[in-house]
Amino acid sequence: MSINTYKEPNFDVAQLAHVEILSPNPEETVQFFTSFLGLEETARDGQSVYLRAYEDLYHHSLKVTEHKEAGLGHIAWRTASPQSLQRRSVAIQAAGLGRGWTDGDIGHGRAYQFTTPDGHMMELLWDIEYSCSHDLHKKPLHTVSKRPNRGVPANRLNHVHLMDTDPGRTTHFMQEVLGFRLREQMVDKGIIVESSLSVSDIFQEIAVMKESTGRKGKLHHLSYWYHTPQNLYELAALLKENEIYIEAQPNKHGISETFCMFVYEPGGNRIELLGDVSGMIYDPAWQPIVWDKTEMSRTRHNLMAASLPDSYWSYGTPATLSHPVKTY
Amino acid sequence: MSINTYKEPNFDVAQLAHVEILSPNPEETVQFFTSFLGLEETARDGQSVYLRAYEDLYHHSLKVTEHKEAGLGHIAWRTASPQSLQRRSVAIQAAGLGRGWTDGDIGHGRAYQFTTPDGHMMELLWDIEYSCSHDLHKKPLHTVSKRPNRGVPANRLNHVHLMDTDPGRTTHFMQEVLGFRLREQMVDKGIIVESSLSVSDIFQEIAVMKESTGRKGKLHHLSYWYHTPQNLYELAALLKENEIYIEAQPNKHGISETFCMFVYEPGGNRIELLGDVSGMIYDPAWQPIVWDKTEMSRTRHNLMAASLPDSYWSYGTPATLSHPVKTY
Amino acid sequence: MSINTYKEPNFDVAQLAHVEILSPNPEETVQFFTSFLGLEETARDGQSVYLRAYEDLYHHSLKVTEHKEAGLGHIAWRTASPQSLQRRSVAIQAAGLGRGWTDGDIGHGRAYQFTTPDGHMMELLWDIEYSCSHDLHKKPLHTVSKRPNRGVPANRLNHVHLMDTDPGRTTHFMQEVLGFRLREQMVDKGIIVESSLSVSDIFQEIAVMKESTGRKGKLHHLSYWYHTPQNLYELAALLKENEIYIEAQPNKHGISETFCMFVYEPGGNRIELLGDVSGMIYDPAWQPIVWDKTEMSRTRHNLMAASLPDSYWSYGTPATLSHPVKTY
Amino acid sequence: MSINTYKEPNFDVAQLAHVEILSPNPEETVQFFTSFLGLEETARDGQSVYLRAYEDLYHHSLKVTEHKEAGLGHIAWRTASPQSLQRRSVAIQAAGLGRGWTDGDIGHGRAYQFTTPDGHMMELLWDIEYSCSHDLHKKPLHTVSKRPNRGVPANRLNHVHLMDTDPGRTTHFMQEVLGFRLREQMVDKGIIVESSLSVSDIFQEIAVMKESTGRKGKLHHLSYWYHTPQNLYELAALLKENEIYIEAQPNKHGISETFCMFVYEPGGNRIELLGDVSGMIYDPAWQPIVWDKTEMSRTRHNLMAASLPDSYWSYGTPATLSHPVKTY
Repeated sequence: MSINTYKEPNFDVAQLAHVEILSPNPEETVQFFTSFLGLEETARDGQSVYLRAYEDLYHHSLKVTEHKEAGLGHIAWRTASPQSLQRRSVAIQAAGLGRGWTDGDIGHGRAYQFTTPDGHMMELLWDIEYSCSHDLHKKPLHTVSKRPNRGVPANRLNHVHLMDTDPGRTTHFMQEVLGFRLREQMVDKGIIVESSLSVSDIFQEIAVMKESTGRKGKLHHLSYWYHTPQNLYELAALLKENEIYIEAQPNKHGISETFCMFVYEPGGNRIELLGDVSGMIYDPAWQPIVWDKTEMSRTRHNLMAASLPDSYWSYGTPATLSHPVKTY
Repeated sequence: MSINTYKEPNFDVAQLAHVEILSPNPEETVQFFTSFLGLEETARDGQSVYLRAYEDLYHHSLKVTEHKEAGLGHIAWRTASPQSLQRRSVAIQAAGLGRGWTDGDIGHGRAYQFTTPDGHMMELLWDIEYSCSHDLHKKPLHTVSKRPNRGVPANRLNHVHLMDTDPGRTTHFMQEVLGFRLREQMVDKGIIVESSLSVSDIFQEIAVMKESTGRKGKLHHLSYWYHTPQNLYELAALLKENEIYIEAQPNKHGISETFCMFVYEPGGNRIELLGDVSGMIYDPAWQPIVWDKTEMSRTRHNLMAASLPDSYWSYGTPATLSHPVKTY
Repeated sequence: MSINTYKEPNFDVAQLAHVEILSPNPEETVQFFTSFLGLEETARDGQSVYLRAYEDLYHHSLKVTEHKEAGLGHIAWRTASPQSLQRRSVAIQAAGLGRGWTDGDIGHGRAYQFTTPDGHMMELLWDIEYSCSHDLHKKPLHTVSKRPNRGVPANRLNHVHLMDTDPGRTTHFMQEVLGFRLREQMVDKGIIVESSLSVSDIFQEIAVMKESTGRKGKLHHLSYWYHTPQNLYELAALLKENEIYIEAQPNKHGISETFCMFVYEPGGNRIELLGDVSGMIYDPAWQPIVWDKTEMSRTRHNLMAASLPDSYWSYGTPATLSHPVKTY
Repeated sequence: MSINTYKEPNFDVAQLAHVEILSPNPEETVQFFTSFLGLEETARDGQSVYLRAYEDLYHHSLKVTEHKEAGLGHIAWRTASPQSLQRRSVAIQAAGLGRGWTDGDIGHGRAYQFTTPDGHMMELLWDIEYSCSHDLHKKPLHTVSKRPNRGVPANRLNHVHLMDTDPGRTTHFMQEVLGFRLREQMVDKGIIVESSLSVSDIFQEIAVMKESTGRKGKLHHLSYWYHTPQNLYELAALLKENEIYIEAQPNKHGISETFCMFVYEPGGNRIELLGDVSGMIYDPAWQPIVWDKTEMSRTRHNLMAASLPDSYWSYGTPATLSHPVKTY
């Protein structure tokens, strides 16, 4: 391929920094994350509580804000440099989806706000507050924070999964304007119904799947991960006995083969717990794996895949379908 | 920080593509990798055999070449684009360490050869042969290759670890000329004695540690990794019963906390098997963790760390010290 | 409780020694056990092949015999002593289910044959051939046999699970005549539909579940176990890619919480692979846990339980229902 | 073998019921078990606190009693029946080691007290209080107690390991008078220096090793076990960060190949945490594996074995040697 024609990858967006979720039961939601996943409350301001997992490097990876219905508040991405932030803000503005600059929030500096074509609120930022002084990195125990002694402590934020009335359109925006790389995609009768994208070597920092009711800007789930797959069985026992609804038991994803489970936090948002990092992709010229939905159905019969209940394919927040939650 | 003064990261080098090791017992070395680690022989040419693990994407991740003594042949890095290859070749030439272009080898196209300041042979390349057609990515089983039914099959190449008469000098070269990010470093009385660097989000694709005998260009070890930590216990039993020398049992590294074990392949090169990916670093402004060796000694008392034998700190290939290998 | 009235437990039957299964495709069946589960062929005689897992202590734990349809050949139990064998043979004869003495078979001495009330063939034996001389126990590696370098080697035989037209009747026979302890039981409208029993501290060496078609003497499954739960994922990948039918993916049982998976060997018999020992019971006065089937249905919603397909509840060998096996 | 000459096994002793340890820092000791191992305090009486792990079936598996120095209080064994209790009490009395009957303690009824030849206090009992009503066994969640939400909760008591001035003499007593089966043994120049014995199918409920200082009745360690090996790494991180001394990191025993780690509770007693059950023995005619200490030294080089520090071989409670504890 000619050097002159090859399109170079864009590395301006570096990582998922934090996610804000909305909850009609904020105290129960915060209690879920602190008591069972071992997250630490790092700040509380107005209707919002800021939380981090014990290996998250920054001030917070999660912001829980009280709202009349569950759903997504916003998603924050950290850029690779201040120059990257400037370049992407210009590109987003040119794409007509920019909302402009804010002075930032607790834990980070100025941010450029924008939305996906489906209306999911996002922001880009560079200046950020670390959860510990870098000197702490030097202490022999070599951990950002001590392992909390409650719940089955999650290690870090991993990715966010959205529902979208037009996944193809948002996929194109994330690729062309923000520089995300498309990893896998599901197509149904020629229509893109699900995409997984990342800016790093993990399989996905974001996924978008088809929302069929027409409701825009929905959240499918937020994922935290554990280094140890077996921890998910410890967590499943803890959550089950504390009456947290478990939608899918610990198992392996058919696509990324990541070890996972799905639960609903008391506010109604779906939370995924991962037992390892998603499939790693180091190939700089990765060709997306495109599945036809008919193949996918076979994949879900793949015994390496979890048998996901129907709710997995229809339920998101804000809830737009009545959703029968199993009770025990 | 001012946009004008911030030094942007360099993403030209994308990943570790393959490593060539030298062996005085090439058939036994190949047998070790194929029978116990489940690698597949993909080509054989002259004194060399080409091998890949079942999830390696490219034609080969390992080249074993017959030589009078064990050691490193060369290390190949894939760039992020053809333009990246061009830019780095110019920078290396300017640094005075370039060897010039080759037409490539089985499994990849033209490459730019160079050495580290300590003389380790390396090359940069872009055009590469995939181990399967991309169409194969589409098959429902969603694997590059079937899991081999022999040994305890390693999933992929992970990193390479060198011995170097001046680790600080090579660290500076890898950072300034190739764009590697420094992750952690050990200092002894102000002298850099070990560095871990990466171009991706894993903790290290390369590490350099102090070689005290003055011998240049030595190899400390090559690492392959498994998705499942427990696999290392299966492998340890298999290798022990087949009289492969195990230098360090399955355990956790004190620094990256990666699950690992160390063995010597029959040619004499040290091979590390990892039970998970190294610690992941997503922070684009990561500050290297710098340890004083006195702290390190405390770290090795960390019960999360493997009790490494003295040979770990002195043995490399080509061997420059008589090295008492335990026999059973 | 009065010493005079307490019924002392009967320890005459010590363990499950081996199981004979019937296969219409004996070569493929043997190939399944040797290539994928790593069993070793220890003898071949007439229409039968004898096999053992690498930690089985005796000559064989499995006998595969050619037959026009799949199913159970017989189940052999080893007694705690020669006196125990004598006592039980008298008790069985008195119960009217004895078939009398045989001279034994390859790998063991004289045995007393009998059937369950449902017609499953069983035998009791004492004299048995060990898979290695006891001196071998002394070798430093401390293993009965080396870990085979093929498949994902199972460690040992664990238990056998039968289908029975009257589980309550057979449960009573196993308890009263052979001295088995009842561990758990499922009751449907007052009728016993499943029982788990053992003579050792594991949760079950034998289970019997309701057969609804009237066919007597059926086999539900045979179980081999692994020390390492994660091995089941390695095995699932290997079997899936080699087109072995996987009925239930690696997961946790709702009752014993044992890590398990279910597959069909090429002869049609269901084989269970366990990732750990079943729940251990040390209480000498253990009260059986009795479930009403309505509770059970809740248990199968327990997210610690595998979502078992309908075939699990209906399919056994010989097959008496047409059984739609998913193909990939 | 003739029925008339074969010595039948004795099944009168069924299981390890509980252990009493002594502590000069009882509150810190109790805090260790409740906060880090998740044990529950079930009673408190005088200078003693009673504790149980969440899957222990009885009122308590551990009794912590204040004392001027650390060590063993007593070991309680439950018999297989009231008749078994009567038979063993007569046999012990005949052996001259009986202390007579007590009315029992919180959580159990009358017990027959006795000592080992080395003076370790033991008792046999039958009537015992369960930690939950048997009806609780019926609730769908199928657990004795909920998983505690603190520490890394241990599942159950596993075994006790003693130091003894004459291991051979105590081994003989446990075999001949109590009916324990000898599983493995280490011999040094013809002298028995360590024995592992059990009454159930686990590798050991009790082990005795050589005490060289002449101090009688010492405790080497007490073991609790986890279903999940990986939990030991979670626990190691928690304990390390809370300054509990870890003597041996998570690793595999050379002999039983059980996954284990060793720590000292704040009272000074060594506690072992197991990541799985010990090697299971179902063979009713098991021949003990006898190691010469010279072989053992090779076993400790076995890379499947933990590299145990010297303190493992010399330290017990009450401490009779000054013992350098590593500090961090």
